[in-house]
Amino acid sequence: MSRILCVVQDFLSDEHREKIRQAADRAGFTPYFFTSDQRDAAKEYLKDCEVLYANQADVLRDTSASLRWCAAASAGADAYCADPSLFPNPDCMLTVSNVYGATISEYVVMVTLELLRKMTYFREPLRRHEWLVSPPIRSIKDGDFTILGTGNLGRTIAARLRSMEARRILGVSHSGRKVDLFDEVLPVSQLDTVLPRTTFLIMALPGTPETVNILNRERIALLPPEAYVVNVGRGNAVDQDALMDALNRDAIAGAALDVAVPEPVPADHPLWETKNLILTPHISGNMALGYTRDENVRLFCKNLLRYANGDTPSGVVDRARGY
Amino acid sequence: MSRILCVVQDFLSDEHREKIRQAADRAGFTPYFFTSDQRDAAKEYLKDCEVLYANQADVLRDTSASLRWCAAASAGADAYCADPSLFPNPDCMLTVSNVYGATISEYVVMVTLELLRKMTYFREPLRRHEWLVSPPIRSIKDGDFTILGTGNLGRTIAARLRSMEARRILGVSHSGRKVDLFDEVLPVSQLDTVLPRTTFLIMALPGTPETVNILNRERIALLPPEAYVVNVGRGNAVDQDALMDALNRDAIAGAALDVAVPEPVPADHPLWETKNLILTPHISGNMALGYTRDENVRLFCKNLLRYANGDTPSGVVDRARGY
Repeated sequence: MSRILCVVQDFLSDEHREKIRQAADRAGFTPYFFTSDQRDAAKEYLKDCEVLYANQADVLRDTSASLRWCAAASAGADAYCADPSLFPNPDCMLTVSNVYGATISEYVVMVTLELLRKMTYFREPLRRHEWLVSPPIRSIKDGDFTILGTGNLGRTIAARLRSMEARRILGVSHSGRKVDLFDEVLPVSQLDTVLPRTTFLIMALPGTPETVNILNRERIALLPPEAYVVNVGRGNAVDQDALMDALNRDAIAGAALDVAVPEPVPADHPLWETKNLILTPHISGNMALGYTRDENVRLFCKNLLRYANGDTPSGVVDRARGY
Repeated sequence: MSRILCVVQDFLSDEHREKIRQAADRAGFTPYFFTSDQRDAAKEYLKDCEVLYANQADVLRDTSASLRWCAAASAGADAYCADPSLFPNPDCMLTVSNVYGATISEYVVMVTLELLRKMTYFREPLRRHEWLVSPPIRSIKDGDFTILGTGNLGRTIAARLRSMEARRILGVSHSGRKVDLFDEVLPVSQLDTVLPRTTFLIMALPGTPETVNILNRERIALLPPEAYVVNVGRGNAVDQDALMDALNRDAIAGAALDVAVPEPVPADHPLWETKNLILTPHISGNMALGYTRDENVRLFCKNLLRYANGDTPSGVVDRARGY
């Protein structure tokens, strides 16, 4: 029996499928394609498949011990790591797709400029057709930024801010290991000393037990009143109640959240009406950009050939650590 | 009698005034400082002044034939060139301050991303607290842009888009002369052949008779349905009625106007409710950014020393041409 590749994805074009077919052929795999609403039809193939290219973690429940590699189309591994029993094969390799930097970094630039240029100040007056004089604003050029998270996403954001002539970019990560593009990287143990001198905080963290509530009430209180906060990682990294309090009291200058708890944010949730908050419906890093879709498929095909050759694909996740 | 410098500006800090004082001292000038509401007190100094650093053209009416150089704090010369009788000395030199690139280019990046990422699609649903899935979006990375105007402003915008990995930047200018940062520059006589293949048009033109209504109804009709238009030059460069028609009919995908006719836009003007239009109250290039204010003073001081040494200051305007 030939080796089986199951693809359960909703975003693929005919061209994408053809690329995957060609790569599978070269790698010695027979590919079977399904969308997320064809899970019943997929079952008999999933139980025998060796490689799975998926965009939903619970597809794993239909796999068996024969699954050797699960290639997630997402950049985050949290949904795949939260419950170890998801993987019938405990030694199954998990990879994520680090292809969202282009779209997320452009989202970050957009909301960073919206915050620095005080667009929330204009929001209601513009709706009332009022032509206002601008209050003092700040710029990315010559600005200082702190990025929490120096992984693929944090680095892409740093590169973009650097290209726009940011003056100083400080990274904060688990290890504090120096990374190119950052002027300095400090370990998360020093976060409390970093926050009082942070005037723009960008959170680009994976969802792990360590990052839950990392920006808690005490830490939000350490930020100066001119500080802005942007979160494009996971919603549970921020104490939302404390953030809303700080914004509504002008204890910080503004924030942009593309992720929240829960998602979707219910219509009656106070986040929607929080002062100086830009709230968007998890649009920074999805499949809306063609580049992201193409790169996702390109990366999977490249990784499939590496896997078939006995090499390690890129994006391998330490499932115990969660990223 | 010592040579007189009159400064009529509202944005100066004590530090700025001190810098101007020091430069004036080195240049052999006695400086007199006024704000725009001190015009009566300024009169007796304006009539004898040789150099004027102003931010409103009609201050010129209080000057005399002794005025040799008017340094405008703005980047646009149109208000100073519209009426030649403004200058009591017909040979008076006029300079503008090309220091707005940093703030205007960040504004352009902001609204470009807002348009490409379909933020106008989310505008009303977000107000109704609706959490939507994103429609297909585009990015600056790998995107194609046409910039109408390759002067200081157009070049700064091109540099910023280039740093964000735009694929191709086409310039259109009066002369069609090649400029660094642009892949190609075409003369305005070829504009009609450029527009049908333009999917993002950025207008950064000076206000001159040649640029009035340059994007007229016929030319708007040449743009493809996926095209976006951004105008940060002068409002009268666009046929606003035709632009509103095109937007409301989905004949083009969206637009952002920071300049309009008239300004302020009256509360009952249809621009406010035009589909897929981002309208902002002339905030892209004012004095709201500290960098712009500092650079304005720095440039004036540098130019004052050049002038005193018999050299030509930067930013000299051909008053007959208007830029």
